[in-house]
Amino acid sequence: MIFLDAAATTPVRREVLEAMWPYLSGEFGNPSSHHSLGEAAADALAGARAAVAKVLGCRPGEVTFTSGGTEADNLALKGIALARRGADPALDRVAISAIEHPAVEESADYLRRVHGFTVDVVPVDRHGLVTPEAFAAALRPETALASIMYANNEVGTVQPVRELAALAAARGIPFHTDAVQAAGWLPLGVKDLGVDALSISGHKLGAPKGSGVLFAKGRLRIEPLVHGGGQERGRRSGTENVAGAVALATALTLAAEEQPRLAARVTELRDAFIRAVLEAVPGAVLTGHPAQRLPSVASFCFPGTSGESVLLELERRGVVCSSGSACAAGSDAPSPVLLALGLEAEVAQTAVRFSFTSAVTANELEQAAAAVRDAVGSVIGIGRR
Amino acid sequence: MIFLDAAATTPVRREVLEAMWPYLSGEFGNPSSHHSLGEAAADALAGARAAVAKVLGCRPGEVTFTSGGTEADNLALKGIALARRGADPALDRVAISAIEHPAVEESADYLRRVHGFTVDVVPVDRHGLVTPEAFAAALRPETALASIMYANNEVGTVQPVRELAALAAARGIPFHTDAVQAAGWLPLGVKDLGVDALSISGHKLGAPKGSGVLFAKGRLRIEPLVHGGGQERGRRSGTENVAGAVALATALTLAAEEQPRLAARVTELRDAFIRAVLEAVPGAVLTGHPAQRLPSVASFCFPGTSGESVLLELERRGVVCSSGSACAAGSDAPSPVLLALGLEAEVAQTAVRFSFTSAVTANELEQAAAAVRDAVGSVIGIGRR
Repeated sequence: MIFLDAAATTPVRREVLEAMWPYLSGEFGNPSSHHSLGEAAADALAGARAAVAKVLGCRPGEVTFTSGGTEADNLALKGIALARRGADPALDRVAISAIEHPAVEESADYLRRVHGFTVDVVPVDRHGLVTPEAFAAALRPETALASIMYANNEVGTVQPVRELAALAAARGIPFHTDAVQAAGWLPLGVKDLGVDALSISGHKLGAPKGSGVLFAKGRLRIEPLVHGGGQERGRRSGTENVAGAVALATALTLAAEEQPRLAARVTELRDAFIRAVLEAVPGAVLTGHPAQRLPSVASFCFPGTSGESVLLELERRGVVCSSGSACAAGSDAPSPVLLALGLEAEVAQTAVRFSFTSAVTANELEQAAAAVRDAVGSVIGIGRR
Repeated sequence: MIFLDAAATTPVRREVLEAMWPYLSGEFGNPSSHHSLGEAAADALAGARAAVAKVLGCRPGEVTFTSGGTEADNLALKGIALARRGADPALDRVAISAIEHPAVEESADYLRRVHGFTVDVVPVDRHGLVTPEAFAAALRPETALASIMYANNEVGTVQPVRELAALAAARGIPFHTDAVQAAGWLPLGVKDLGVDALSISGHKLGAPKGSGVLFAKGRLRIEPLVHGGGQERGRRSGTENVAGAVALATALTLAAEEQPRLAARVTELRDAFIRAVLEAVPGAVLTGHPAQRLPSVASFCFPGTSGESVLLELERRGVVCSSGSACAAGSDAPSPVLLALGLEAEVAQTAVRFSFTSAVTANELEQAAAAVRDAVGSVIGIGRR
């Protein structure tokens, strides 16, 4: 099997399993307990927090462990917006892009439905880019928070986060970015990016499902999403998932060490794959930005096919990929992200996304490109019969 | 080491590790993905859900996997109260007991602070019992939800949940119970209990930290806590922690099979331990109900000592336990639970809780009782010098 669906999830890395194992077996303490078992767990958690902080270039106290990227996004959106409006009732708007992950989009919609916020949606260009002009136009004196994803999960477009964050900062508006897809592939230094909050998911990085991180500047007030015993400096209650935190910290540290080298290598492989597919499949359309895109994502539409049929034919040929977001798999509706890029619904329904782990090889991608040619040919052939 | 802090957390059971292992290694699919890897993950998740439903006697669709007991409690309190008030603005009160876990208490307080709810707090008697009379008196036409814990985490008192749930049902008020401490020790059939919602935590049962379950009747509308891709039938978004769900289901199934036999055995050991401690330590006071208590919890105050000093002396003697809730460890304030039972603050500050796994032995508890005698004697001796 050639696994090209790494944007949906990734296998747990061996080093990560080894690092987390003690906290699934002998070292089972509750970090809140004041005895030797509890202290060992608290030490492990502190170590994991320090490791994440080192990669992000922030203080350990600014790292909140969550149950995943979705929870981190929810905590950022709701937590910051509600706390800011609590301090100043005039702050009743949030600004997000038109191609956010549902974790951000639905959190904004919750703020609208239940708390009466107004959501300003920033359009994107045909490559999925949020331009500084469009972003600036959406910011208002009442904007409590702006949230623009670092890299899109369906088409891989990378936003000019530094520039956007600077525009928000100039207006005193906290800026959050969903870095779930970017983590492992793009620089994550939060000071250099200029962001106030940033979300990461463990399972996209070689850690298990069920772990995530929200970086949020220490001075930001945040209304918690999960209330209770006051863990995570009161920002996220509940007994800490020590093994999950250690796993995420290990995976993130490894990815950060490897990132410059691997990103360059995989970018080259990606571009060769894109060229091969565009050559092999007449009419194929690359979606997302041709250059400002994740090293790990090659996404296409194959007009005249149906995305689901191509996926089935690819799987028969040993290539596992997806039509787009796993979170939307099973839905027949065309992807809102592709529609926001200006694609016709009929074309958007032919989307196929190939996303790579850092272990992807040239040979795998050559085989995959051949399989794409055959799969699309087969589907179009069926359509013509 | 004699580990008597199982109410804080438990070691992961070998069978549980074995059951979850495939989902940390080869079977790493995202359950939302429409290919063979994703389907294998979805099957595992469905199997875990069915297993939990079997133990609870409910439909699989009524089981929502969460990141833990605290999140399950938050989802029940906020999710049900907000959805009910959304449908009927008059429903703006919640009723909870005076000795709820902070996950429930702080969720109720969030509803008060941020959403303008009124919280009706039901007092308990000196044994920590919520009497049906006190409970009925707190219920009003405006009560959106009542939440009374099944068994208390600090003193082990078991509430008459059936009777309380019936009182709520007679008034058309949904009834939630925090069964985090009860799970594994008390019957969990939700139909027999008559509850509308019930929370469980995996790590109190021999599963790892980071997994929990909320049972909620299918017909209940719930405003999600975590919004996004619509996983868990829209009740809880975010890529599912497949390994955690499998682990929780395995641990819960094992516990349910063993429960009748183990509860009887551990109750006997507990009572022998309580007698031994009360005999060995003059002035020792059992906290909580003498009979209606968890098989696994023996909790005392040792007037004239300080709880923290006794804990240190016990740990020196190889006995690991706690002053009460791990979530409140490190706080110098006397336990609000013990104050609600009518204990004086000076006495409440001398609390020590012993809580057992199902593997506890008579020999361990004999050693522990002797260690308690020596530890308290040592602390009182120090105090007298």
